[in-house]
Amino acid sequence: MPLITLLTDFGTRDQYVASLKGVILHIAPSATVVDVTHKIPPRDVIRAALMLRQIWPWYPPGTIHVAVVDPGVGSRRRILAGRYDGRFVVAPDNGLVSMLHRELRVEAMHVVENPRYMLGKVSPTFHGRDIMAPVAAHLASGVPIEKLGPPTDHLEILKFATPERMPDYSIVGEVLYADQFGNLVTNIARNHLLQTYQHRSGVEVYLDGVRIGPIRTSYHEVDSGKPLALIGSDNHLEIAVNCGHAGQTLSANRGSKVEVR
Amino acid sequence: MPLITLLTDFGTRDQYVASLKGVILHIAPSATVVDVTHKIPPRDVIRAALMLRQIWPWYPPGTIHVAVVDPGVGSRRRILAGRYDGRFVVAPDNGLVSMLHRELRVEAMHVVENPRYMLGKVSPTFHGRDIMAPVAAHLASGVPIEKLGPPTDHLEILKFATPERMPDYSIVGEVLYADQFGNLVTNIARNHLLQTYQHRSGVEVYLDGVRIGPIRTSYHEVDSGKPLALIGSDNHLEIAVNCGHAGQTLSANRGSKVEVR
Amino acid sequence: MPLITLLTDFGTRDQYVASLKGVILHIAPSATVVDVTHKIPPRDVIRAALMLRQIWPWYPPGTIHVAVVDPGVGSRRRILAGRYDGRFVVAPDNGLVSMLHRELRVEAMHVVENPRYMLGKVSPTFHGRDIMAPVAAHLASGVPIEKLGPPTDHLEILKFATPERMPDYSIVGEVLYADQFGNLVTNIARNHLLQTYQHRSGVEVYLDGVRIGPIRTSYHEVDSGKPLALIGSDNHLEIAVNCGHAGQTLSANRGSKVEVR
Repeated sequence: MPLITLLTDFGTRDQYVASLKGVILHIAPSATVVDVTHKIPPRDVIRAALMLRQIWPWYPPGTIHVAVVDPGVGSRRRILAGRYDGRFVVAPDNGLVSMLHRELRVEAMHVVENPRYMLGKVSPTFHGRDIMAPVAAHLASGVPIEKLGPPTDHLEILKFATPERMPDYSIVGEVLYADQFGNLVTNIARNHLLQTYQHRSGVEVYLDGVRIGPIRTSYHEVDSGKPLALIGSDNHLEIAVNCGHAGQTLSANRGSKVEVR
Repeated sequence: MPLITLLTDFGTRDQYVASLKGVILHIAPSATVVDVTHKIPPRDVIRAALMLRQIWPWYPPGTIHVAVVDPGVGSRRRILAGRYDGRFVVAPDNGLVSMLHRELRVEAMHVVENPRYMLGKVSPTFHGRDIMAPVAAHLASGVPIEKLGPPTDHLEILKFATPERMPDYSIVGEVLYADQFGNLVTNIARNHLLQTYQHRSGVEVYLDGVRIGPIRTSYHEVDSGKPLALIGSDNHLEIAVNCGHAGQTLSANRGSKVEVR
Repeated sequence: MPLITLLTDFGTRDQYVASLKGVILHIAPSATVVDVTHKIPPRDVIRAALMLRQIWPWYPPGTIHVAVVDPGVGSRRRILAGRYDGRFVVAPDNGLVSMLHRELRVEAMHVVENPRYMLGKVSPTFHGRDIMAPVAAHLASGVPIEKLGPPTDHLEILKFATPERMPDYSIVGEVLYADQFGNLVTNIARNHLLQTYQHRSGVEVYLDGVRIGPIRTSYHEVDSGKPLALIGSDNHLEIAVNCGHAGQTLSANRGSKVEVR
């Protein structure tokens, strides 16, 4: 019962996702296929790289994650198959694997080149269906990752804005994205805070220079409609509005400046 | 092949649904996980309670329904695991289970407290992933419901607007929501009508005081673009527009008054 | 491990899709159920017929495709169960099967009439749940297609705009739809081009009389933001904008005229 997940910017209106699933289930009929999301904003490799990192710990070893945000399809960008922490990823070499690569120990990384594990005819515009889906299905069926192509140890790494620790011990980071509830997820991880402060007391969070307040534990510590800062469920500092939409209420989005003092 | 369904307000853009599924499939690899919807309007416990009731009869005994619309996460609200009619529900104790509880005989109801069936580390903001998903997966793996925590016989019950029968034998109810097609689903059930009227002839439906007409059997009994009333597929009185969107055409939505005379 | 796919205009906000899945998994618990899409524009039988054709080759023999875009539910339109190329389709007889029927050899076509394979009580407004879902589940469980009802050899065929070959060897077709990325998919298939031209050189594509250029192989042959024509992954001529949204940039949509000269 191998597990294959799909993370794409294909949306759910067209036949693209269904084509991938058909290809996978044709090759690996007993696979369980799970949609991570198909609503990555078109060509937003950064959001996809983050999400791949966010879901990583929740899936069991042996899971094969297929991530297709692939604006470079048909150009000379490579396709990678890697293993981190016992889980596999199949993705274009455009930075999608960067966040995993920065934070986890790579156990294997191969360039997908062996046509034996691709569809017989590869279209120049849909490698998700014609290369990545069948490769994932073959991995699920027990093909060793080494068979897919030569190993590689350099890959495209995106530059993620990283938080800075200032001489006065404040931390300056930024908003990565607003989630569905409008919560503003920042690039300041729990670890950054732990390394800088012994405990949270006395620490204050600012968004674009405006004081949000101390780091809370749950939404209900402030009144409904009021903003707060807390460590979100994926261990990053978040700015939220209790029972509201922080992105709209606070007019903030990707790139907005966040300070912890 | 245990069956687990998910009903949430998480949307499908973020990693939240995928995290739940990873947790479930890690614990119960052979489970079949089905999305009911993730598009409950944020924090709309009433819509979720209705939908849980609507899907209930269609799933086989043994199914475990996980419903997470949980604005009170991190507060002292409890988490419940119940059984009605041979099917299970795992949900916060915020009224989500109300409609089931009002209409079906409860076979078991327990407060989820046993940390053994939760994730090792429970975040204060995502009990769907850290408590409800693993509890559902353990139920699917055969853990008896009694092991989850102490039984309880009081739970949070929402007040749903119920239709009134007037002295002149008219019934006054209201619109519960507009579905995807714009059909206006009301709180007047087939049973309310059967109890009041011997047969449908002579009965007329009004929306906000405007006459819609008699209760029809199918959309095609009126011309394209014309409004009609009928008993919908979930046994509630609906107001629709043949080949159109009643919510928009008739400017009605939740709370609009519906009368049957 | 029979495979059942669902292609509907139900959207994903309401309980309709979940009801179908419950019915299917009740009858055929080991089935794998795959969503093709639920976002066919309401009542757009043409788009659904195209999509059914587009996904057909990617699913393995034995797959059962359930397609429910059914504005005529409750009227006298029939329900069909057919087999093409070893795969099954269950759909209303409203043209949904037209594209398959035009391009593939029909192996079996039956009118679904046997109440034994429907739910015990059939609502007049939701044959997807009460007839088509259980019929698909019974097919998945091994019921022979002949048992569903009498054979038929005439079915509702939609008129699809077909491209015309002009005396000067130009081909005139039209845009069928814009996909999620804004790519304009036309009704001019690779075959039409092959039959008319020996090779692509010298051929030029025009959209509403405006020159787009020659037929390219991949998006990257033009600069970012520039329009191009290419053969899409489903073997139809497409007009795209590299890293952009052709539908918006070129103000085109279904019915826009496309010429290849």
